[in-house]
Amino acid sequence: MAGQTTGRHLFLGTLVHSKSLSELEFLQNTAVCVDDKGIIVAIWPNYDQIRAEKSLYPRLGWSRGDVTVTRAKEGEFFFPGFIDTHIHASQYPNAGIFGKTTLLDWLNTYTFPMESSLSSIEKAKTVYTRCIQRTLSHGTTTASYYATISVPSTNLLADLCLSFGQRAFIGRCCMDTLSPDFYRDESPASALADTRATISHIAEIDPSNTLVTPIITPRFAPSCSSELMHNLGALQKETGLPVQTHISENTNEIKLVGQLFPDHMSYTHVYDDHGLLGPKTILAHAVHLSDEEVDLIKKRKGKISHCPASNSAITSGTAKVRKLLEKGIEVGLGTDMSGGYSPSILEAIRQALLVSRHVAMEGGDECKLSVEEALYLSTRGGASVVGLEQTIGGFEVGKEWDAQLIGLNQVDSDESINARPVDVFGWESWPERLAKWVFNGDDRNTLAVWVKGRLVHEVKS
Amino acid sequence: MAGQTTGRHLFLGTLVHSKSLSELEFLQNTAVCVDDKGIIVAIWPNYDQIRAEKSLYPRLGWSRGDVTVTRAKEGEFFFPGFIDTHIHASQYPNAGIFGKTTLLDWLNTYTFPMESSLSSIEKAKTVYTRCIQRTLSHGTTTASYYATISVPSTNLLADLCLSFGQRAFIGRCCMDTLSPDFYRDESPASALADTRATISHIAEIDPSNTLVTPIITPRFAPSCSSELMHNLGALQKETGLPVQTHISENTNEIKLVGQLFPDHMSYTHVYDDHGLLGPKTILAHAVHLSDEEVDLIKKRKGKISHCPASNSAITSGTAKVRKLLEKGIEVGLGTDMSGGYSPSILEAIRQALLVSRHVAMEGGDECKLSVEEALYLSTRGGASVVGLEQTIGGFEVGKEWDAQLIGLNQVDSDESINARPVDVFGWESWPERLAKWVFNGDDRNTLAVWVKGRLVHEVKS
Repeated sequence: MAGQTTGRHLFLGTLVHSKSLSELEFLQNTAVCVDDKGIIVAIWPNYDQIRAEKSLYPRLGWSRGDVTVTRAKEGEFFFPGFIDTHIHASQYPNAGIFGKTTLLDWLNTYTFPMESSLSSIEKAKTVYTRCIQRTLSHGTTTASYYATISVPSTNLLADLCLSFGQRAFIGRCCMDTLSPDFYRDESPASALADTRATISHIAEIDPSNTLVTPIITPRFAPSCSSELMHNLGALQKETGLPVQTHISENTNEIKLVGQLFPDHMSYTHVYDDHGLLGPKTILAHAVHLSDEEVDLIKKRKGKISHCPASNSAITSGTAKVRKLLEKGIEVGLGTDMSGGYSPSILEAIRQALLVSRHVAMEGGDECKLSVEEALYLSTRGGASVVGLEQTIGGFEVGKEWDAQLIGLNQVDSDESINARPVDVFGWESWPERLAKWVFNGDDRNTLAVWVKGRLVHEVKS
Repeated sequence: MAGQTTGRHLFLGTLVHSKSLSELEFLQNTAVCVDDKGIIVAIWPNYDQIRAEKSLYPRLGWSRGDVTVTRAKEGEFFFPGFIDTHIHASQYPNAGIFGKTTLLDWLNTYTFPMESSLSSIEKAKTVYTRCIQRTLSHGTTTASYYATISVPSTNLLADLCLSFGQRAFIGRCCMDTLSPDFYRDESPASALADTRATISHIAEIDPSNTLVTPIITPRFAPSCSSELMHNLGALQKETGLPVQTHISENTNEIKLVGQLFPDHMSYTHVYDDHGLLGPKTILAHAVHLSDEEVDLIKKRKGKISHCPASNSAITSGTAKVRKLLEKGIEVGLGTDMSGGYSPSILEAIRQALLVSRHVAMEGGDECKLSVEEALYLSTRGGASVVGLEQTIGGFEVGKEWDAQLIGLNQVDSDESINARPVDVFGWESWPERLAKWVFNGDDRNTLAVWVKGRLVHEVKS
């Protein structure tokens, strides 16, 4: 249910979040009070449960019996939930299957047939359920999803996100041209009507978008007619809803856009000229943008979803993230599953670090991202990209409790070797523990996950 | 104990291994008989247990009560054990900790202090035990290890490998120059004597090298005097033992070698001129080799360990694997932990695939490796690199049973979401299942591991 809560919470222990792009903050022995709407109402360092009960509860009008207490054990820490700014729920079954393809043949070989098959509600239910369970287990508390062109199955994705408690943007894919006969919108008008149908459905199930929000989703310029994009630009203006699409991922794609839209100055201008580039627009990939395009995106306050695993896997190229950050553009991370092979943002963090080193091999050391920076992109950066920087991405009073409890493995524990990765020997500093988690962690280290104060995943022991 | 066995085995089910560099073979419903020395004595497709007992056992002189039967369930498969051709056991605690360093400052900042600290036998025992347990859990049945300069702790690594049952090459690091005062060999003579001490120790504990073999290990040219390398070259000639070292990893390292060894034509010539380049030499990295160096390595039948995770992580560059393969050079995979952040060869396979795509971004599509090729490198390729191509790397009569049982996750199973990654929906082909495993698998999918017929790891359920 939208707005479903589980009462008041006290979280105790170490909290880690981004203080700035380049710096993590480590809050030790901290007490966090989260109210029954999932909102953080108090954060106090150097508090234990007794002190919290004695001095915080009275101020909040809380009494002991009302409150669920969750304690991070020694070495464990709370971290903001990950934000996946670009993920195709409908491609989940193809994760890892892409052969030697690049974007355009990948779409035709693997992607369109899979997406098309999800017009079966039964299949869509299986696939979307698993996708949500998996991404939650990897600590993804917010996802900006692409579904398919099918209204019923896109609406089902919204229902499931609401039911599992994952914060989500739900995009019905719009594509009325250059797409296969078996998988395309019939006309610009039908694409617009179907988009409105999903918007209406979400308005019914979550009227104030507490958890689920529609997002206008022209697939990418090559599969959208100019009329369709004008329609969607007008719809954005009318509704104020966010927009997501792909941009400048692959050189052949860019050439194709040049051929299809010869009257527009660039790929970025195509979107801008159709009213689709603004402060609520999430542009995925942005691998090969010209300086002029970067400037235009900055001017329009457009946002960028960096999808490093995908860009390497289907050989798209390397996005120049340092340059985008220096321009002051907001950047988040995306799995782009299944162009990216993994549903995990932790994997996207690793790949962002590695890809930035490939950029550095040519462009110099300053191109490298640090562990701290990649973690920022996955939380506060992502929050800005989806327009929720006031609500999620870090731990501050007034923000909502979208968090994960992280536990590494103490080598002197009695756990079996497969129980949990990331061996900690005991002498590591906190920043070293974070680095170890980033490079060798997986869903086993994400012990529990909350969205808006609601426990949405827990590792079964 | 060396040669420890667990009697006769019958393995039943699907087997997958490399038929050639570019092709996997899928053997369905196959029976494999492994004798009490761990040697495969029969492989018969289309056999079940009853048929095996009826028609295979009599021919082998086996009777039912003697044989341990292991059955791969529907969807599971046996795969050859992974071969890690380059791994620093002594750097395991640093896995994931490398910041923005590159090779030379990485050595001084993280690596030498850690390795030096393992002169403490107690610490070495903790670290090496965990390293072996972890690598076994990831399916590494053979590892070519670098230990440290310490003889007792290097000997301990050999003892532990023997005791855990991991096939291993054990290298005492030789480094008598340009190394910190707290961590260097006193002289070329002491380095040689210490190397001999480890060789003698292994001759005592595993006289016929059934499982553990010494490997002559000049760390890399910059940390070895010419006299030391001549000593080690002569030792190789005397003993016939394998050699491992690093080559052409980083451009600053290559410049340094040019300065230190101005009378040698190239980095490769430095080793060759000291009698250290031959058919039993494993050269790790080989990122920036000139054509002449590649030709010389080919001429000497030298082997190459490709370490893609490391090359990306510490920004060394991209090895041109396709070119090496086309030259006919034997290539295997190495984790190079902790230059590489992961103890897992499955991660090295993924990174080999991704790095080859980065090479392809500049060099063209033919540079891309396929899933099949990367799996070959991790098994048969690695076997050739460590000189065991007649013994391990695939399933043939006469080879030894170094194998892992792989299980993916059926989405309709009742397992908890964290129990096992790699969701299989049921419609995937076998090559698609392998691709899914390669890109999203981890140690949870490696249900059991055998070396020479001995069960050395099993996932606790």
